[in-house]
Amino acid sequence: MSSLLETINSPADLKTLSVPELETLAEEIRQFMLNSISRTGGHLASNLGAVEMTLALHYVFDFKQDKLLWDVGHQCYTHKIVTGRKAGFERLRQVAGISGFPNPTESEYDQFTVGHAGTSVTTAVGMALGEQLKVRKAEPGGDGARRKTDKAEPAAPRIVAFVGDASIVNGTSFEGLNNLGLVKRQLLVVLNDNSMAIDATVGAVAKYFSRFRLSHTYEDLRRTARNILDHVPGIGRGVDEAVEKIKKSIRMVLPPSQLFESLNVPYFGPVDGHDIESLIRLFEALKEVNHPVLLHVYSKKGKGFNPADEGPTRFHSTGPFKINGNCVESETDSAELSFTEAFGEALAELGDRDERVVAITSAMCDGTGLAAFREKHPERFYDVGIAESAAVDIAAGIAKTGLKPVVCIYSTFLQRGFDQVFQEVALQNLPVVFCVDRAGLVGSDGPTHHGLMDIGYMRMMPNMILVAPADAVEMKHALEFALAQAHPVVIRYPKDAIPSDEFVRAASDKPFELGKSILVKRGRRSVLTIASYGTLLSEALKAAQALHDDGIAVDVVNARFAAPVDEKILTGLSRRKGLITLEDHHAACGFGSAVLELASERGLDVGRVRVLAAPRRFIGHDSRRAQLMQVGVTADDIVNAAKEMLNDRGGKRKEK
Amino acid sequence: MSSLLETINSPADLKTLSVPELETLAEEIRQFMLNSISRTGGHLASNLGAVEMTLALHYVFDFKQDKLLWDVGHQCYTHKIVTGRKAGFERLRQVAGISGFPNPTESEYDQFTVGHAGTSVTTAVGMALGEQLKVRKAEPGGDGARRKTDKAEPAAPRIVAFVGDASIVNGTSFEGLNNLGLVKRQLLVVLNDNSMAIDATVGAVAKYFSRFRLSHTYEDLRRTARNILDHVPGIGRGVDEAVEKIKKSIRMVLPPSQLFESLNVPYFGPVDGHDIESLIRLFEALKEVNHPVLLHVYSKKGKGFNPADEGPTRFHSTGPFKINGNCVESETDSAELSFTEAFGEALAELGDRDERVVAITSAMCDGTGLAAFREKHPERFYDVGIAESAAVDIAAGIAKTGLKPVVCIYSTFLQRGFDQVFQEVALQNLPVVFCVDRAGLVGSDGPTHHGLMDIGYMRMMPNMILVAPADAVEMKHALEFALAQAHPVVIRYPKDAIPSDEFVRAASDKPFELGKSILVKRGRRSVLTIASYGTLLSEALKAAQALHDDGIAVDVVNARFAAPVDEKILTGLSRRKGLITLEDHHAACGFGSAVLELASERGLDVGRVRVLAAPRRFIGHDSRRAQLMQVGVTADDIVNAAKEMLNDRGGKRKEK
Repeated sequence: MSSLLETINSPADLKTLSVPELETLAEEIRQFMLNSISRTGGHLASNLGAVEMTLALHYVFDFKQDKLLWDVGHQCYTHKIVTGRKAGFERLRQVAGISGFPNPTESEYDQFTVGHAGTSVTTAVGMALGEQLKVRKAEPGGDGARRKTDKAEPAAPRIVAFVGDASIVNGTSFEGLNNLGLVKRQLLVVLNDNSMAIDATVGAVAKYFSRFRLSHTYEDLRRTARNILDHVPGIGRGVDEAVEKIKKSIRMVLPPSQLFESLNVPYFGPVDGHDIESLIRLFEALKEVNHPVLLHVYSKKGKGFNPADEGPTRFHSTGPFKINGNCVESETDSAELSFTEAFGEALAELGDRDERVVAITSAMCDGTGLAAFREKHPERFYDVGIAESAAVDIAAGIAKTGLKPVVCIYSTFLQRGFDQVFQEVALQNLPVVFCVDRAGLVGSDGPTHHGLMDIGYMRMMPNMILVAPADAVEMKHALEFALAQAHPVVIRYPKDAIPSDEFVRAASDKPFELGKSILVKRGRRSVLTIASYGTLLSEALKAAQALHDDGIAVDVVNARFAAPVDEKILTGLSRRKGLITLEDHHAACGFGSAVLELASERGLDVGRVRVLAAPRRFIGHDSRRAQLMQVGVTADDIVNAAKEMLNDRGGKRKEK
Repeated sequence: MSSLLETINSPADLKTLSVPELETLAEEIRQFMLNSISRTGGHLASNLGAVEMTLALHYVFDFKQDKLLWDVGHQCYTHKIVTGRKAGFERLRQVAGISGFPNPTESEYDQFTVGHAGTSVTTAVGMALGEQLKVRKAEPGGDGARRKTDKAEPAAPRIVAFVGDASIVNGTSFEGLNNLGLVKRQLLVVLNDNSMAIDATVGAVAKYFSRFRLSHTYEDLRRTARNILDHVPGIGRGVDEAVEKIKKSIRMVLPPSQLFESLNVPYFGPVDGHDIESLIRLFEALKEVNHPVLLHVYSKKGKGFNPADEGPTRFHSTGPFKINGNCVESETDSAELSFTEAFGEALAELGDRDERVVAITSAMCDGTGLAAFREKHPERFYDVGIAESAAVDIAAGIAKTGLKPVVCIYSTFLQRGFDQVFQEVALQNLPVVFCVDRAGLVGSDGPTHHGLMDIGYMRMMPNMILVAPADAVEMKHALEFALAQAHPVVIRYPKDAIPSDEFVRAASDKPFELGKSILVKRGRRSVLTIASYGTLLSEALKAAQALHDDGIAVDVVNARFAAPVDEKILTGLSRRKGLITLEDHHAACGFGSAVLELASERGLDVGRVRVLAAPRRFIGHDSRRAQLMQVGVTADDIVNAAKEMLNDRGGKRKEK
């Protein structure tokens, strides 16, 4: 069956289509995404809501020249489809397939590789300032007066930031909005407000939006937009006048404008995000405006897919699934327990026993396994929205009152709260527990989402205790330990299933003691020690078994602590051939690095310490297993490293 | 001469005073601060503006029980004076004297040690939530039902956050305001808006405030407040009614309310911050309100001191000075060139030569030495206010357009932009230059302001190049090198005078080459190498001289790079007794740690490497020199370490 979508290989192919054809294309793209994501998994609901807006933007702007900045990028699939990456969806978020986020190395149509929220407005302000300066310099009498007179200058690119309502309330977005006044040229911010279908709104801005939303239907929005557009006297001439008219007819009438206008951000909207014709006409008008402007668009998350329609959080990010009529069956409901689930169960139980436990997250309730705790203790659960800095500061305040806040944020997002952890928690020595999920390599989300720096950025801070459990039993012990401390504690664990290693389990059922490692396996006359921090312990045990089979005896230590490091790890180093440290983190500043520092302090020969950890480079999206192999922290890598240390002692090692 | 101030040893002593007496006390406190700060240096202008507000707060609340949270703490001197710390001003910000910031170890009246902006609202939200949960638990039928029936529960503490207009626009503040709705109890935010006397306002919120400010005099404000208060039917009974009346008479009339009310923050004001009587009556009313409320107060920065009055930025933070009539003479106008000045000169010059250079700071124009650049190239200078995340993201956007942004932020404040440096700069490999001033120990500002983590948090990131100049000549070379790279570059330097070491200067006049260290001093048959990163090179050279005098020959290397580290530093390690690394940073994750990692990778004996750097603990306020001695990175420490390594090889070293 022939389709319009087949004919679209670049945005240029869109521009010849009529509005009804674009509407048909939108439906085809929805079907394409649905089929594709049901096979590969991916971000579904938010992408289904952004189809028409994306088509209208590409219809009106030329993003080979103009710049389109996505926020997070959960909504960029239509953009990827129409910019020549349709085929890449076969292997979405898999190696050799396309990334789930915008990625300039993938396409000239992408600007920033982004997976953290709240950056689009502020980076767009930067790009607008850069273009502003370049135009200024090119002008006669401008700063540089470098105008090339022999050929025409290309037109200055137009800049568009596309941001969702969950990202606009992030502190970084706010700081960008507050500085929008620096920009004295075109800059369009499209605010895609798609919370309509979700009842849980977080924060005052979200409530502010929703109060208004409740009193309007899409029909109202469409009528308003059409009404406004009737005042536009045709695009191409009298644009400024048209824009002024649009503005006059909208502003002050609709409540959300108050918020943005008090920030001095010229505001248009809200308009219906699924009405392609109105969107095209509005974008045509707004692209000529020579100052920043924000267009507020309402859209429906999961539009066109009933199951997603009914539960967009379920389909925010999904694994592969089967569509069966209007029902959906998940294909991979793994029977294996994940670290996240083990944490969620442990916290819910500890929350029963200690009513001082309070859980705080920043828009990661399900992702961090907090749903069980929230259900049992709703009054002790806080979700502050995408606001990691606030999550940390609120936890600091709660700790100050004598309660026991547990902050649950992914490793990579907690980077947003680094300074708050430093000043408001570590410097005050407040007993906040940081449960750092997605620590280490994360698989399909790729380099924006790996948690490869948390050991480093946390262990520099005085007062901070760093622990990592190796399995579910240890998870509970680690959490119990953490909640009993008078210091801040960081617990890290990966996005992974818990290894079902009987030996780990038997050895791990001991309470955590400050700074104490556990000798998990003792070899007979061991020549080497393998010290593992966290969940790679099962790899260390596999390696020990393989080495044993080759007649090489090794000890395996479960380090448990990266701060303070147990000196016992270094015991006997002088009598042995060496020590291998293992972790799921950058080699720079990680657990191995902490061991080296301790050894140096003790005057021990650290030439005998080999650090197995990720090299200092960005690791692309792939399966987590493949990433672990790529960076060299699996059992095979340990075996190779051990043999190299035993055979090639003192020689120069190859660089990774 | 007898004075009221002499009789004030705790807030209780205030409560017996009449309003005229409080007014007299305010004047005495101003004189006291002026005299005291003229001798010791300190934050002057902002503290002079906050006297009446602080007295009124202490008059109305009981901060032994209630909680007062300062933002940054530049305005807390009156608070310190009335809470028994008058005598401590003799040695303000000196060792054994009081700190310049709030400090719970100093007084039970302080909550958080804070020097970074934007935290008070958000930590106050946390404390309010904690108190809310505790009350709930104590109630019969509450979560815990732990009510003690045999004795009366103490009243729940009231919570007050005191925040300035420069801090309220920070992303962390905004995230806190956006989550204020979580609080279902009393919480008072006092917004001290003191920009009236400064003409430079940054950002939309500041402009929003100032537009209104321009149309009102203090007389208007006073009249409005009195008017409002006439409606209050006496404090103590009918308080809710009174508050409702206040509210009705203010809201929607005065424009700034729009901003806060659109954030759903109940807003009162603006009122005159120097009218003690009105302030007392307002606080009395507002303290009874059982939900969060923001009181907007206008005050005059530097009030009561004419020279400060005329130039509050000059007296924001000052060294000792002499008052001569209405003129002021600085006492310590050092003839020595500081690193900041060397940077400022170098950047202004490079800005002349390359019109692509753009400077960005977040409210640290003078502090980072950017004044010269701003004067010469105002169109290429951006100050985004206290918004480090935005500064980094805007720089990323500018770099994306092909220009050369230089971000100038203190090391400790750049922690606020850690994630932005990671995702928006390092991951994109954008050529942004970070000029990290106040790297290392900072002296009198103390632990909130030390920059002891930047090597660690920067060197973990792929693509990032880390350099540190040892003197003014190197500063220029480092900056030239940085601006020529296709990668992000970090240049770090301390708040210090440049050592006038002829030998450093002679050796340093060579362009920077990627990853190349410089052998500054070669000993005859050296037994040790000292590798210094950055400005402590002069200490290394002094130590080398002293060792030479004792017959011990050493090499001294100026490392220049912490990422990538020059392998040459390790050359000959196996033939020598050891290597001493030197830096002004935490030992954890620093330059020495990077050297250890490299040595371990190369299979070298790292037991022979001794890392001289700061231990993992907080270092109190003191002179920078004393702090360097305290952490053990001076010439004497190097000499001792060298002798220890030569005599006591292999033995266990003492822990610091």
